[in-house]
Amino acid sequence: MLNIDDSPIVRDGKSLILAMDHGLEHGPVDFTEVPEKLDPSTVFETATHDAVTAMAVQKGIAEGYYPSYEDDVNLLLKMNGTSTLWMGEYDSAVNCSVEYAADIGADAVGFTLYGGSNHEVEMAEEFREIHEDARAHDLPVVMWAYPRGQGVKNDTKPDVISYATRIALELGADVAKIKYPGSKEAMAHAVDSAGDMKVVMSGGSKTSDYEFLSTVEAVMDAGAKGLAVGRNVWQREDPTRILDALEKVIYEGETADAALEE
Amino acid sequence: MLNIDDSPIVRDGKSLILAMDHGLEHGPVDFTEVPEKLDPSTVFETATHDAVTAMAVQKGIAEGYYPSYEDDVNLLLKMNGTSTLWMGEYDSAVNCSVEYAADIGADAVGFTLYGGSNHEVEMAEEFREIHEDARAHDLPVVMWAYPRGQGVKNDTKPDVISYATRIALELGADVAKIKYPGSKEAMAHAVDSAGDMKVVMSGGSKTSDYEFLSTVEAVMDAGAKGLAVGRNVWQREDPTRILDALEKVIYEGETADAALEE
Amino acid sequence: MLNIDDSPIVRDGKSLILAMDHGLEHGPVDFTEVPEKLDPSTVFETATHDAVTAMAVQKGIAEGYYPSYEDDVNLLLKMNGTSTLWMGEYDSAVNCSVEYAADIGADAVGFTLYGGSNHEVEMAEEFREIHEDARAHDLPVVMWAYPRGQGVKNDTKPDVISYATRIALELGADVAKIKYPGSKEAMAHAVDSAGDMKVVMSGGSKTSDYEFLSTVEAVMDAGAKGLAVGRNVWQREDPTRILDALEKVIYEGETADAALEE
Amino acid sequence: MLNIDDSPIVRDGKSLILAMDHGLEHGPVDFTEVPEKLDPSTVFETATHDAVTAMAVQKGIAEGYYPSYEDDVNLLLKMNGTSTLWMGEYDSAVNCSVEYAADIGADAVGFTLYGGSNHEVEMAEEFREIHEDARAHDLPVVMWAYPRGQGVKNDTKPDVISYATRIALELGADVAKIKYPGSKEAMAHAVDSAGDMKVVMSGGSKTSDYEFLSTVEAVMDAGAKGLAVGRNVWQREDPTRILDALEKVIYEGETADAALEE
Amino acid sequence: MLNIDDSPIVRDGKSLILAMDHGLEHGPVDFTEVPEKLDPSTVFETATHDAVTAMAVQKGIAEGYYPSYEDDVNLLLKMNGTSTLWMGEYDSAVNCSVEYAADIGADAVGFTLYGGSNHEVEMAEEFREIHEDARAHDLPVVMWAYPRGQGVKNDTKPDVISYATRIALELGADVAKIKYPGSKEAMAHAVDSAGDMKVVMSGGSKTSDYEFLSTVEAVMDAGAKGLAVGRNVWQREDPTRILDALEKVIYEGETADAALEE
Repeated sequence: MLNIDDSPIVRDGKSLILAMDHGLEHGPVDFTEVPEKLDPSTVFETATHDAVTAMAVQKGIAEGYYPSYEDDVNLLLKMNGTSTLWMGEYDSAVNCSVEYAADIGADAVGFTLYGGSNHEVEMAEEFREIHEDARAHDLPVVMWAYPRGQGVKNDTKPDVISYATRIALELGADVAKIKYPGSKEAMAHAVDSAGDMKVVMSGGSKTSDYEFLSTVEAVMDAGAKGLAVGRNVWQREDPTRILDALEKVIYEGETADAALEE
Repeated sequence: MLNIDDSPIVRDGKSLILAMDHGLEHGPVDFTEVPEKLDPSTVFETATHDAVTAMAVQKGIAEGYYPSYEDDVNLLLKMNGTSTLWMGEYDSAVNCSVEYAADIGADAVGFTLYGGSNHEVEMAEEFREIHEDARAHDLPVVMWAYPRGQGVKNDTKPDVISYATRIALELGADVAKIKYPGSKEAMAHAVDSAGDMKVVMSGGSKTSDYEFLSTVEAVMDAGAKGLAVGRNVWQREDPTRILDALEKVIYEGETADAALEE
Repeated sequence: MLNIDDSPIVRDGKSLILAMDHGLEHGPVDFTEVPEKLDPSTVFETATHDAVTAMAVQKGIAEGYYPSYEDDVNLLLKMNGTSTLWMGEYDSAVNCSVEYAADIGADAVGFTLYGGSNHEVEMAEEFREIHEDARAHDLPVVMWAYPRGQGVKNDTKPDVISYATRIALELGADVAKIKYPGSKEAMAHAVDSAGDMKVVMSGGSKTSDYEFLSTVEAVMDAGAKGLAVGRNVWQREDPTRILDALEKVIYEGETADAALEE
Repeated sequence: MLNIDDSPIVRDGKSLILAMDHGLEHGPVDFTEVPEKLDPSTVFETATHDAVTAMAVQKGIAEGYYPSYEDDVNLLLKMNGTSTLWMGEYDSAVNCSVEYAADIGADAVGFTLYGGSNHEVEMAEEFREIHEDARAHDLPVVMWAYPRGQGVKNDTKPDVISYATRIALELGADVAKIKYPGSKEAMAHAVDSAGDMKVVMSGGSKTSDYEFLSTVEAVMDAGAKGLAVGRNVWQREDPTRILDALEKVIYEGETADAALEE
Repeated sequence: MLNIDDSPIVRDGKSLILAMDHGLEHGPVDFTEVPEKLDPSTVFETATHDAVTAMAVQKGIAEGYYPSYEDDVNLLLKMNGTSTLWMGEYDSAVNCSVEYAADIGADAVGFTLYGGSNHEVEMAEEFREIHEDARAHDLPVVMWAYPRGQGVKNDTKPDVISYATRIALELGADVAKIKYPGSKEAMAHAVDSAGDMKVVMSGGSKTSDYEFLSTVEAVMDAGAKGLAVGRNVWQREDPTRILDALEKVIYEGETADAALEE
């Protein structure tokens, strides 16, 4: 973990990462209700909102669409990922080298680590290379810290989530993206477990405006430094509206109620 | 995905790839009815047809025969492939390096990804290297996007095919070659799922002229950018006749009926 | 094994290594009673005690916190480690390269070898690379010599522990960190088994001051060259007090009784 | 496949390769009747016969004995091979690098590919490296094209053998060494399947002069370009006599009868 | 195999290698009766005897103790080895690179190959690298040719031992160290099987002076070129006495009786 407060993916010490790698991780099914969002340009447009400090996509989307948005969007290149089509213990393919990510203008890199998978050792070693290459290119590293696998019965239990942030800190991540562990207290422990490393909450599947923003409010109160969100933004009819509200909760410390009222 | 409209393997935004790697993938059995086609020269001759924008072969065929055709044929070197002799979960050997492909004059490279195979992660990582090496040599990358394996019950189901094109886009392919998902609507969804990346249909096993051309017509109407075909061309008695018709359907927007009438 | 008596991690031929990689190896659960120690700074502060010759942490902790302590603490970078979340035969991920360790100021490197694991061969080969890279950077190598796995019924049996120190010697470690084999005689045999290589005892889980110091006294009498300790120091309310006592037992040859009296 | 007619291992478009890697592949048991042949010099002496265009041996034999024969024998270095001692699916170790083969004077390299083995993918990838390295050193590549493994019930069935030559062609071999598929027609199909690539028959276990030469005659009639033979030559009391006869059948187009009469 | 008669590890065409890697391969248990030999210096002292042409140890022992003996002892660095603690098919970790071996003054390298293990292929490929690196550094290669594993019922059967020497020859070893196959005739066959490559007998577990020397006498009569011995020398009360006798049997062609009488 290094201090990345000067990085373009951070604003006032916080980050709002808009993620759109669902086409790989979940398949086109995530776009069923919003088929127009299959066109990545639509989500890049959303990412030009001031609240968004980075857009997280896989290599192919980045090389195809980022050139049109590089003045307005910061690129967080997601380095690994895989489909849900196959069977077997959790794993993720490294789809991009750091050198290539840097070549196409990445401002940061992202990596999923399935702590608890029987492939954890192999994934951690892949993370080592990404991490050290990223240091050489001066790119912050965001870990999708997602315990999953044969050894993990419940992937949102407080002690599992706190273990996840700690793994991220110990292995060298600059930011850990975690699932909400169910309460503000559990989130606060996960934040403490991360030392000085930033923790952001994963947005998860789409919920109501109020439910979503309340959780974000709780998370920020617990000491988290922001959000990495996909479906809860781009599956909405009006992504701008929710981003306006998120901006207030995340950067201006407003409550969910206050942010929605406006 | 990059814009490859200036590539020799593209004509007016579209491609007709003549594939002949069946000797490796299926064995000589595919040549039973047309034993003279075991001589690759015969298929290279066919590939000199103006409708054909590239011929796809394995390394050994390329180094042995392409030198005689390099003025008249564009070479799409198929980088991986394997026989049907062995047993076990779908996988494919990387039989050529990009550097060697470039040395022998390749205009593009091809790679099979069996999304859904329990070897998907390994294959995606092999694809990463091929892709980044191809970018360094300025060679377009065509993905044979073929979900197969323990996790794939039906490899032509619409949602499987749409997932296949999306994987190709997210991983960085410039063209995805997919099987026909059974209807024009399903094909259109697979095309949408691919964003701005080109999608071409895989020709499949030999069918009647009308059936074949009708499918191609539907596919082009659905937004696909062409065809990658083997048996449906070189297993025919008169490959030129079908290529003449394909040229009309693919590049001139004619119907199957109109193309056959001539 | 080389003579490392001139190394900063050695004082008068002996070492007291303060380890804090428990967040990765055991999870935040080790901090339940001392939640403030989740902040690595607190343990680095403790490591500034004169008795401590090195602090052992993973890469992420080192790059985040060591810059503030590099004048007062010697860094032993632990090169591998893994969580307890996953299942299967003992293994450990290599989380840092020697080059990166050197870049961030490491004075020595540490490596866990699970002799007896069915991954022993693979781990020994990883150790080979770390060892030779460490030699090239002139960094001493400490082996966490921990027999574990399908073939090891009891990991503190005297003959297992003596085998552990011998493996460390034969593979090239400069120091072996072992568990206490239950008696001073067994410890003496483990020390003999190590030839001229230094042996230090692993501190283990927290015990009473007297019990802990008596064991250290026995270990030093048996010819060991010190201690690598974590929980028995930083889980205590007053780490300074126990370090004062350890200093006397380890470097000044005092008895546990004498050291506690003061 | 490249044109290798100018290579020293080819004479008038044909080759007679004397192989002696049986000590590794089968063990000393193949020498029971001819114990003096355990001394590789005896077989190198035989290889000085004008009919022999290359001698195929493993690295250790080559580096030990070839220096005394390099003026009179062409060296085909067999790059992989393994013993029969172990159990499990067919595989073969790569025992030599192309660079080392070139250093010790190899005129060509040989590689066994067990198409049909569940290790086929891995072996094909090893072949890729050998092939491309051999191209860089301008050394022809001979594939021992031997389908074997869980998926291959009968390794001399005509369609299996024709598949074998095709795999060799598609992967880039210059010569395929195959077992006799049982009839001249089947051999002719295997030759057709190979396109312009040379096919040579594997000599197999020792048979009578007439039986052996008749098979060679049939094979040459079927379009093959020679023979790779071991036991049928060096297990004979008078290897020179059979080589004289083979010279007539292979290079001069004589019948087995005519060749034996002389 | 190269001619290594000019190598320091050879004296008059023969070798007596004193091995002491038992601490790794067997554990400290081999030192139970001679605990003072746990100190490697004691065995290095023994190795200064004129009869000993090389001492074989693992990397860690070499780097720690060889500097004090480099004027009086030749170093055979044993490159792989593993403990008996783990379970599963025979394998051995590569614990040293050739470059490092050369840096610390090795005069030759040693490598165990478990022909017959289901890891034979992998071990042979590791041997390839060691062998070619050793050639580049002009270091002779000694193979511990030890058939073991699921496919080997009896590892001292004559045909197994003759296969072992042949594998060593074919893969490029300069010396093969084998177990005694039970009779002088079987040993002679194993020697014949090795061509011009040197064969030395493995000393095995401690036996009486007469029994041991008689076997050595038989082995030398059978054409072997010496001995690689550990326990039968350093487990004895007076290693010098047995080395004096071995010197006579190995280098001066005396009988066991004659050598013992003196």
